[in-house]
Amino acid sequence: MPANPQLDAQGRLRHLLSIEGLPRETIERILATAESFAGVTERDIKKVPLLRGKSVFNLFFEPSTRTRTTFEIAAKRLSADVINLNIALSSQTKGESLLDTVANLSAMQADIFVVRHASSGAPYLIARHVKPHEHVINAGDGRHAHPTQGLLDLYTIRHYKKDFASLTVAIVGDIAHSRVARSLIHGLNTLGAREVRVIGPQTLIPTGVEALGVRVFHDLRAGLREADVIVMLRLQNERMSGALLPSAQEYFMSYGLTPERLALAKPDAIVMHPGPMNRGVEIDSAVADGPHSVILPQVTFGIAVRMAVMSIVAGGA
Amino acid sequence: MPANPQLDAQGRLRHLLSIEGLPRETIERILATAESFAGVTERDIKKVPLLRGKSVFNLFFEPSTRTRTTFEIAAKRLSADVINLNIALSSQTKGESLLDTVANLSAMQADIFVVRHASSGAPYLIARHVKPHEHVINAGDGRHAHPTQGLLDLYTIRHYKKDFASLTVAIVGDIAHSRVARSLIHGLNTLGAREVRVIGPQTLIPTGVEALGVRVFHDLRAGLREADVIVMLRLQNERMSGALLPSAQEYFMSYGLTPERLALAKPDAIVMHPGPMNRGVEIDSAVADGPHSVILPQVTFGIAVRMAVMSIVAGGA
Amino acid sequence: MPANPQLDAQGRLRHLLSIEGLPRETIERILATAESFAGVTERDIKKVPLLRGKSVFNLFFEPSTRTRTTFEIAAKRLSADVINLNIALSSQTKGESLLDTVANLSAMQADIFVVRHASSGAPYLIARHVKPHEHVINAGDGRHAHPTQGLLDLYTIRHYKKDFASLTVAIVGDIAHSRVARSLIHGLNTLGAREVRVIGPQTLIPTGVEALGVRVFHDLRAGLREADVIVMLRLQNERMSGALLPSAQEYFMSYGLTPERLALAKPDAIVMHPGPMNRGVEIDSAVADGPHSVILPQVTFGIAVRMAVMSIVAGGA
Repeated sequence: MPANPQLDAQGRLRHLLSIEGLPRETIERILATAESFAGVTERDIKKVPLLRGKSVFNLFFEPSTRTRTTFEIAAKRLSADVINLNIALSSQTKGESLLDTVANLSAMQADIFVVRHASSGAPYLIARHVKPHEHVINAGDGRHAHPTQGLLDLYTIRHYKKDFASLTVAIVGDIAHSRVARSLIHGLNTLGAREVRVIGPQTLIPTGVEALGVRVFHDLRAGLREADVIVMLRLQNERMSGALLPSAQEYFMSYGLTPERLALAKPDAIVMHPGPMNRGVEIDSAVADGPHSVILPQVTFGIAVRMAVMSIVAGGA
Repeated sequence: MPANPQLDAQGRLRHLLSIEGLPRETIERILATAESFAGVTERDIKKVPLLRGKSVFNLFFEPSTRTRTTFEIAAKRLSADVINLNIALSSQTKGESLLDTVANLSAMQADIFVVRHASSGAPYLIARHVKPHEHVINAGDGRHAHPTQGLLDLYTIRHYKKDFASLTVAIVGDIAHSRVARSLIHGLNTLGAREVRVIGPQTLIPTGVEALGVRVFHDLRAGLREADVIVMLRLQNERMSGALLPSAQEYFMSYGLTPERLALAKPDAIVMHPGPMNRGVEIDSAVADGPHSVILPQVTFGIAVRMAVMSIVAGGA
Repeated sequence: MPANPQLDAQGRLRHLLSIEGLPRETIERILATAESFAGVTERDIKKVPLLRGKSVFNLFFEPSTRTRTTFEIAAKRLSADVINLNIALSSQTKGESLLDTVANLSAMQADIFVVRHASSGAPYLIARHVKPHEHVINAGDGRHAHPTQGLLDLYTIRHYKKDFASLTVAIVGDIAHSRVARSLIHGLNTLGAREVRVIGPQTLIPTGVEALGVRVFHDLRAGLREADVIVMLRLQNERMSGALLPSAQEYFMSYGLTPERLALAKPDAIVMHPGPMNRGVEIDSAVADGPHSVILPQVTFGIAVRMAVMSIVAGGA
């Protein structure tokens, strides 16, 4: 077995850094645990005492209100104490290195660090330096990984489609800049999805992506045909350095998901999106709000998945 | 009975959007419930478990540290989990519509949305789209309404003056831009105050305001005569688009509340202000800190009133 | 006995504003109480119910993520409700005076105000105006004092060195602008340290500092000789108005703590730093991460010390 920084010597999940390299049974255990929490968040009292007295630090070096909020809610529903640190806004840490910042927070007796960082690999660096009883959860690092998003995507697919072995999953859009796509592709492969397709213009599909075990389509209609699951990616304007793309309007003409194009997929296909959506750019409102859309259930499942990950790494769940 | 978006089919308070249209018995029930909480906030352990396991989202599209703080304290004293979202600062929601943002948060299993928004009507729009078990509390929308402020004003008046039927209430200042004034006027009318007066320069009194059931005065001295309650409004510099007003100094000369002017009111008149005060602009420090001032008790009552509203809509109190 | 704004009529700690003027037994009681909390923060459930139902307001008029975080954690581990107020960011309080802001928060039934302010004396002003059951803790005011930092420094020294009477403590760096240095010097004098030295260039040592009971050295080597404890101060670039200092590099040449210079001190000397460190400016990484460094334990002890101060002033501990 290759050394896996996410697992301890007994093979238990210690950090969640990436879906890549996560054993199938670990993923399945997270999904099963999340299922048990899905009931909790429906209850009148949405709280369990699993992480009572534990300290969760939300370490956001890159602002993301939405992701931070889901982790904050998940931690509070586990009865943990949550400390939000928007490091980008902090002038105090000016000139201090990432590792000094983390060493300091670690000295405050943290249990879990939820880390969002613009640099790929930052959560790995942190995980290598925390104390044995501390846990790191990657909440998105650069273009690399966003494993809890990938896990909630897997949870959503399993919820609606049960068996992965028969599924064709089409991921559409800016594959090149998407940590969401990378995380999901690894998870689908591990769980044995029949076929994973990536669809997008040549400029947004990394060369050699086939090595990840996906089929590449540049034509949306061809790629959608007979798909069971369609994952639309957000067109991240802020990530693109100009000339990669024509206008948003032209993008919609070629790659926007409309009801007509959706009709090419299986009749019971589900449509997913990690949010926030650009309506009229990557997705038509009629699809986003239509009967095939499971975009809002994804958000709900995301809370349960994050509760599962935190309770597994730190709570002995 | 006209359809009232704030009440459910059984006539119970579901959302608090505006004092306008709130039945007298609903207002009275809020004030009575607040009275029972006023005791809690005086205790050594200022907490009751009424909203334990519930999630309160403070959705501030417009920053307001003071109002956000009062709702945060009120929710925590009810044992709720509080998530603060300063949407104005969030770059993540760029390009996302208000309804998509709310739909996402709603998918995280919210119980109460406390909404502050610069656009009049935003909380109504949200209330129309949340799920049946979710509740919206308006924490100030544009120039329209600020119902919890209005309710705490009513609570304060009732606390000191008992019976509304004999009261003359004078509201002084920038009526045109004040959601505080609008909310209070509606509440005073519903509870049957004898006379509500609005006092200010012509440029700050909306034309046709008499339709709300108030008497207009442009002369401060005339308006204050024999008043039982004086409500001084904050001069919102940021709301005024120039030329409406002479200088702050000249405003004080005409409309600032000084001890001499206060002497024209009843000898036991109370002086209120929603805060934050501009000392020396709308109010003289001798009055603000004087024996007639109930400005700080208003703040204290505001916590109890917000606890009452939250527990009534979401806690079955 | 001179009137001491920090003590009540019975001599009990009511506010923590400065180490200056704090009786020896009060300091010793804080350190002993902190010791009892050090165990709590090592436990699996790092929480005690001492401040349950109490409200702690973190009033930061000057941003400081690190200090705010330590107080937030300490308060939450005492089960208090914490409200963070970053007043510098708040536009709402524009034009409102410090005392009006505090009076308003006080009306919300606070128990403890943790105050950080760029102006020396601001916490004293607030302490003079809060209600009898409210408590003020100074989290750093201008160049004046930072008593919880001083106390955690004392705790650290006592933890490693036991007896103060035999100790030589060397404080190195920007004494002139350091509230950390001032607080520590007062504490060391009160606890009877044998010798307190301050070391730095003439421009960073205030004239007449000897009156505080310290020995002044401008030569680092001479000052470090036979020291038991070395406290390196952060070079606060933002505080210096130009011409006081040569470049950071030249500063390091003269006053940076290297392994060679550290060797002049006692063989079992400990090295402290309040953080955040400027590696390569005031301290060499080999020292910061070396066996003499107790910089991270300082942070851990800081949580216990802040828990102790809060529970003593407000919890009857």
